[in-house]
Amino acid sequence: MGGNSTGAHTADRFADDPAFAVHEGGKLSVTPTRSIDSIADLALTYTPGVARVSSAIAAEPELARRFTWAPRVVAVVSDGTAVLGLGNIGPVASLPVMEGKACLFKDFGGLDAVPIVLGTTDVDAIVETVVAMAPSFGGINLEDISAPRCFEVEARLRERLTIPVMHDDQHGTAIVVLAALRNAARVVGRPLADLRVVVAGAGAAGVACTKILLEAGVGDIAVADSQAVLHGGRTGLTPTKQWLVEQTNSAGYAGTMIGALEGADVYIGLSGGSVPESAIASMAPGCIVFSLANPTPEVDPEMAARYAAVVATGRSDLANQINNVLAFPGIFRGAIDAGATAITEGMKLAAAAAIAGVVGDEVRADYIVPSPLDRRVATAVAEAVAARARDEGITR
Amino acid sequence: MGGNSTGAHTADRFADDPAFAVHEGGKLSVTPTRSIDSIADLALTYTPGVARVSSAIAAEPELARRFTWAPRVVAVVSDGTAVLGLGNIGPVASLPVMEGKACLFKDFGGLDAVPIVLGTTDVDAIVETVVAMAPSFGGINLEDISAPRCFEVEARLRERLTIPVMHDDQHGTAIVVLAALRNAARVVGRPLADLRVVVAGAGAAGVACTKILLEAGVGDIAVADSQAVLHGGRTGLTPTKQWLVEQTNSAGYAGTMIGALEGADVYIGLSGGSVPESAIASMAPGCIVFSLANPTPEVDPEMAARYAAVVATGRSDLANQINNVLAFPGIFRGAIDAGATAITEGMKLAAAAAIAGVVGDEVRADYIVPSPLDRRVATAVAEAVAARARDEGITR
Repeated sequence: MGGNSTGAHTADRFADDPAFAVHEGGKLSVTPTRSIDSIADLALTYTPGVARVSSAIAAEPELARRFTWAPRVVAVVSDGTAVLGLGNIGPVASLPVMEGKACLFKDFGGLDAVPIVLGTTDVDAIVETVVAMAPSFGGINLEDISAPRCFEVEARLRERLTIPVMHDDQHGTAIVVLAALRNAARVVGRPLADLRVVVAGAGAAGVACTKILLEAGVGDIAVADSQAVLHGGRTGLTPTKQWLVEQTNSAGYAGTMIGALEGADVYIGLSGGSVPESAIASMAPGCIVFSLANPTPEVDPEMAARYAAVVATGRSDLANQINNVLAFPGIFRGAIDAGATAITEGMKLAAAAAIAGVVGDEVRADYIVPSPLDRRVATAVAEAVAARARDEGITR
Repeated sequence: MGGNSTGAHTADRFADDPAFAVHEGGKLSVTPTRSIDSIADLALTYTPGVARVSSAIAAEPELARRFTWAPRVVAVVSDGTAVLGLGNIGPVASLPVMEGKACLFKDFGGLDAVPIVLGTTDVDAIVETVVAMAPSFGGINLEDISAPRCFEVEARLRERLTIPVMHDDQHGTAIVVLAALRNAARVVGRPLADLRVVVAGAGAAGVACTKILLEAGVGDIAVADSQAVLHGGRTGLTPTKQWLVEQTNSAGYAGTMIGALEGADVYIGLSGGSVPESAIASMAPGCIVFSLANPTPEVDPEMAARYAAVVATGRSDLANQINNVLAFPGIFRGAIDAGATAITEGMKLAAAAAIAGVVGDEVRADYIVPSPLDRRVATAVAEAVAARARDEGITR
């Protein structure tokens, strides 16, 4: 195989890191679901038998949902511009992440997924490419596309396509954050509407988290980008940030993110960087700290535990891991099962409630979200999302 | 699964045709090659472990050949405009054919293949879409794109990309026809250079067959489109047909395809329709008839056998089946194994020789090509194609 061509001289360099062994030759395989052992098999799977199936679909396109694989295939689409914490590393280097995502789609959602990495970062070109290939797929998972382009790419694809489209860095993260905040609020005995929240980061995840928390009824949110909290006096903002100015920070606070933490109930870190102990110490008693930068949280988790009633991170070695895998497999599975033509705000809220519901009455300070390996989650999310899609009447 | 949504009321309609049972739910599956059974597995397959692999590829892109699946993945790309004998049935209805092709890539070539059907028939849009998604793949198999657009699509993609690109309806067919003709010529004891050939059809397959037969040294070829044999007096021809005028029919014959058969040594039917017995009777003694329309050959095979020394068709229930599956899995496998940046004319000729070589000295009138199920073929083709690519110095 071609994959071995660079193997000989590089074997030693990567031998010490098991992550490279796991990636040897890639992480995915496409396999036929029917075996071809005879001329008769060949004549049914391929010509001439396949012509009868294609003819039937040509006459009645809805039959493609039954006789092709496309309805259950999700394209994991990236341009490689905002990959994990690595930034703009390009499409080819982003492939291991997209392959990993496809593994999780299958393992947790029972869906087939195909990485499609694009050699362009132009919004028009991305949109036209995805629209052109859309008949091949049952859903589009946008991944690791940098802000603010990601907002326009997603909005335009939702407008153009009648299959589920979701930018996971926005909504997958937002859904799990809302699920976690619901349960954290139960732990501290506070309704969401009472909470004053500081969101650090106005990129893909920060914007989507803010939106879903507003929809869920969180009382007051201040959103900070790398400069300061977004407020009416800021100039030169993108349309998305301008929208946030209008929806958040009703008090018009014009200072820094650190200043906004004084007396706040919730910190949601989606920005990277480092938050000093004094800032966490200034938060309200019984506060909640979600510090989601990976692998290094913005707030040291041990330090945070000295002040906060509930602490969550993105790290797999600590309690309360906020991991998108809790959301995206079940969301796409539910949307596809229902034949939904889109993923709506209502379906996202239903997904968050379902994730929180798996924890249920076992909720406690160090168990506000299920384990990423909890197989009940995707099923619960899929059922809730499908039910909501049917309620909204957006199914085929 | 969504695939069942139309199942209940249609089960009866399709129960009598086993081709539909084979296609229930589609014919492909994407599966992870690594299992995720623990948090440690998740941390290697996905974050944070995957970040180290992506970083390494970002620093040294050639590592993608070792640590991603892309190099061994072939995109089977179609716009659904020339599907089997069905014509322009659109992308969704073409999916069962593309899925079948992907099954054959895996079964015979050990390559992963993904159907990409496009919701556009515009040449510019097809080219830009495939170029944009090319970093996801190790090869592009163009399929069932109608002539003359297929010539331009393939030429422009070959120009723009440094991975193997091949329109199988052209070259897969041509390669197997040349292999079959080599062995048929052995059966009748004639060198290729002595043969006078009539190619009926100037579409994708007819053009490519003519080109490869010229490259292989066939003496004289007359090519007919639906009107007549191509000759210098014809006007309003496409650039491709004009090229054929210049390369073929040195005698300047200006009549019909039927007329050209008089005294001809070889008939290659790639057009559909029906050829009368009198025309076959007028061919030279010991003639060769390849009648490749499917499922109904242009020349009735039983009738042909009364006049011809060797008869081949596209049908799986008769001897000498000309089937592209003899070519494409081994060609892509060989090109990818060698790290070839293109599929050259030399590699196609090497593939044809390898297919003919599997028959070897067992050649006889009813055994000029191997069975489509003969597992030796793809291996022999891959080795010959890879060796030729290395000889030509077009590998990475």
